[in-house]
Amino acid sequence: MMKKVLIANRGEIAVRIIRTLKEMNIKSVAVYSTADKGALHTALADESYCIGPPKSSESYLNIDRILAACEKSGADAVHPGYGFLSETPEFAKRCEEAGIIFIGPTSELMQKMGDKAEARATMKEAGVPVIPGSTGVVENLDEADKVVEDIGYPVVIKAVSGGGGKGMRFVHDKENFEKNFKDAKKEAKNAFNDDRVYIEKYIPKARHIEVQIIGDGRGGAVHLYERDCSIQRNNQKLIEEAPARILSEDSRAFITETTRKAVAALNYPGAGTVEYLYVEEEDAFYFIEMNTRVQVEHTISEEITGVDIVREQLEVAFNQRLTITQADIKINGFALECRINAENSSNNFMPSPGPVKQLHLSLGRNVRVDTHIFTGYNVPPNYDSMIAKIIVHHDSREAAIQKMTQVLDETVIAPLKTNLDFQSFLMRHENYLNNNVDIKFLVNNKIIDQ
Amino acid sequence: MMKKVLIANRGEIAVRIIRTLKEMNIKSVAVYSTADKGALHTALADESYCIGPPKSSESYLNIDRILAACEKSGADAVHPGYGFLSETPEFAKRCEEAGIIFIGPTSELMQKMGDKAEARATMKEAGVPVIPGSTGVVENLDEADKVVEDIGYPVVIKAVSGGGGKGMRFVHDKENFEKNFKDAKKEAKNAFNDDRVYIEKYIPKARHIEVQIIGDGRGGAVHLYERDCSIQRNNQKLIEEAPARILSEDSRAFITETTRKAVAALNYPGAGTVEYLYVEEEDAFYFIEMNTRVQVEHTISEEITGVDIVREQLEVAFNQRLTITQADIKINGFALECRINAENSSNNFMPSPGPVKQLHLSLGRNVRVDTHIFTGYNVPPNYDSMIAKIIVHHDSREAAIQKMTQVLDETVIAPLKTNLDFQSFLMRHENYLNNNVDIKFLVNNKIIDQ
Repeated sequence: MMKKVLIANRGEIAVRIIRTLKEMNIKSVAVYSTADKGALHTALADESYCIGPPKSSESYLNIDRILAACEKSGADAVHPGYGFLSETPEFAKRCEEAGIIFIGPTSELMQKMGDKAEARATMKEAGVPVIPGSTGVVENLDEADKVVEDIGYPVVIKAVSGGGGKGMRFVHDKENFEKNFKDAKKEAKNAFNDDRVYIEKYIPKARHIEVQIIGDGRGGAVHLYERDCSIQRNNQKLIEEAPARILSEDSRAFITETTRKAVAALNYPGAGTVEYLYVEEEDAFYFIEMNTRVQVEHTISEEITGVDIVREQLEVAFNQRLTITQADIKINGFALECRINAENSSNNFMPSPGPVKQLHLSLGRNVRVDTHIFTGYNVPPNYDSMIAKIIVHHDSREAAIQKMTQVLDETVIAPLKTNLDFQSFLMRHENYLNNNVDIKFLVNNKIIDQ
Repeated sequence: MMKKVLIANRGEIAVRIIRTLKEMNIKSVAVYSTADKGALHTALADESYCIGPPKSSESYLNIDRILAACEKSGADAVHPGYGFLSETPEFAKRCEEAGIIFIGPTSELMQKMGDKAEARATMKEAGVPVIPGSTGVVENLDEADKVVEDIGYPVVIKAVSGGGGKGMRFVHDKENFEKNFKDAKKEAKNAFNDDRVYIEKYIPKARHIEVQIIGDGRGGAVHLYERDCSIQRNNQKLIEEAPARILSEDSRAFITETTRKAVAALNYPGAGTVEYLYVEEEDAFYFIEMNTRVQVEHTISEEITGVDIVREQLEVAFNQRLTITQADIKINGFALECRINAENSSNNFMPSPGPVKQLHLSLGRNVRVDTHIFTGYNVPPNYDSMIAKIIVHHDSREAAIQKMTQVLDETVIAPLKTNLDFQSFLMRHENYLNNNVDIKFLVNNKIIDQ
């Protein structure tokens, strides 16, 4: 029997998923809001269903309407993409209850990884490095001293009920500890009527490095090496690289294999990403969180390994297997992705939706473009501003950056404003070229104010 | 000193070459006829010069005008692309005389390979298999008997001064030989007043298989494996594949290594292709000719090997070296190219130039498109009708064909007529899918009349 998958998403990721479904001879079902009538994903899918008005809560986030489209179309499975309902345990649970395969982890596993404290505890237990700190609340100065002796300065004291920086103190040496500890408790008491605090190592400067994992759901898992996604604005990634050139072979082997084992131990099914802060000076990784879905930047891991991550997600969901083993997966060259957003870089990155009247992409050798836009398309104002991902696969980081610069400079997307020029500027920035970056790159280099 | 290269060509290959020049930080100079004003290659190059009216003899084939543009721009070298002056020894010679590096072989080597008899003799001497036959003229029946005994039936008797099939006889067995031999001589005498004939083995059914070579000009050469380009119309290739799936590992090793050695022995500089007829039943190769330039279908060899062939041409031309060794070059997967022509497949493939008003390419993972067209471009009627090359790189021939089918079906180029539908039809043809093909595929399968 021909299988059928409904894609509970829109934009480039819906297009991306549909293309792999076609390669696998699996029927595809698109859903769309009225703002996305005529969108590319609806044209490419075998069937498509309108699920409501533009507002996400009434369409792409509306579980009832998506399940109704599943029923109507007879879909066997749902691919959630990224964003929207992709990390909502309730959606996974409702699919499970309706007998529809949710392409992703079980609702239970998703819940477990969605709770940051539980995820930290689970990963720590599995041998993954987490940010060192107290085990829960620190009652008094004696306890605090022991914790700090253990983890070393600098540390951050945080209020258990904290928020907005209240009851938070950064301490860089022993001399200043006692006073700050007392001040933090006092401030917390005043602000939240709860003076409980805990202590974590303070990480003032780090990169964002993440490991791509695909698990078979039965104790097996492979990693597709790591990505460096340090260039961000407002915690939104702008540029992604694979592999992370800053890592030594030993560090790469350590973090990828540690992550792989930890995720395998969870019986994790499908694609997931474990994110870390990486401190160059210490050669140390600190767990941030696990994303239980395919990510925007999965493309660069595909380019350096040759693996189709969406295909593997589907293989796991339908056949409880991977088509690849760890031994098959080698790093080939270097891949770089720039996210192209419909936004005005010269005006505080204001979203800039509207019609695409001119579109010229720079194609050819080494270039991959994942996009849902076309000449005559109208970028709706209702959703994320990302309109394309430009990916370059080349021999080295230097060659990839140089090629990306040319590609960005040749690309025309008009009249709507995009961040093409901004990305082009970053590609030419000396500190970026020297791979002298961290997650505060844009602020530290005075490119943006905050 | 920054180097500067003039591209004596137009269309997608000019764009292709300029992109690699940019990657290598080499300045590019475009030339264009008035029909190509505003063409993509002129926009991408650092400088561009009009060299005359649309008629090729007054622009792209006009050596004087191209050399004048070289002088004006101060170009150090000329890249001829394919077609036009790329295999004209006089052009190479004139460049040599003007002190401009011609990116290709010396005029002498080009001459040698351009003369079919000399090329055959040279290649035979270097150990390359050629079509068995008499050494020159066969004087009488006794000599003929010896030749035929040696090469076996079927054979073809050809008049030395022959043309249009006059004095040509196909003979399938000994019984019919004497009569045909006498008839051929008689017919030749009557037609050309020259009764001299020679004999070759007749090859009724063969594939077109070619080996991509890059020589360093100093006795070294690498091969980038082979391509199967059997699907042709009127001797024009339509679909190209790499590697040739029909070959055993032994046959692949034999023909690629034999070819590599022969070309190395010529001290051949840069990219070249040695073309063969391949007879499946005999597992035998027969030399056709050597093309002393980059070919349209070089892309698929790039995809399976990761080598940038244009870069290697430039390395050889400027630095007398290759950046790769044979040991580096491995086959990775399978690549397939469909040539997209502005022609009307439903009306005897009549050229169909004109404006491109709608253009939608199917991009993403595994897809490469080499093209010079864009929305608003006007395909001029003056040149070759090829407007794009769609290349798919995938795990296997089957996967590549399936992906190509989807890509072709999604692609929109309008309102001008293209062969997208025709290519899509071929991708679905049972004999093509089964790799049951030869150079007469279209006629044998009654897809075209002749």
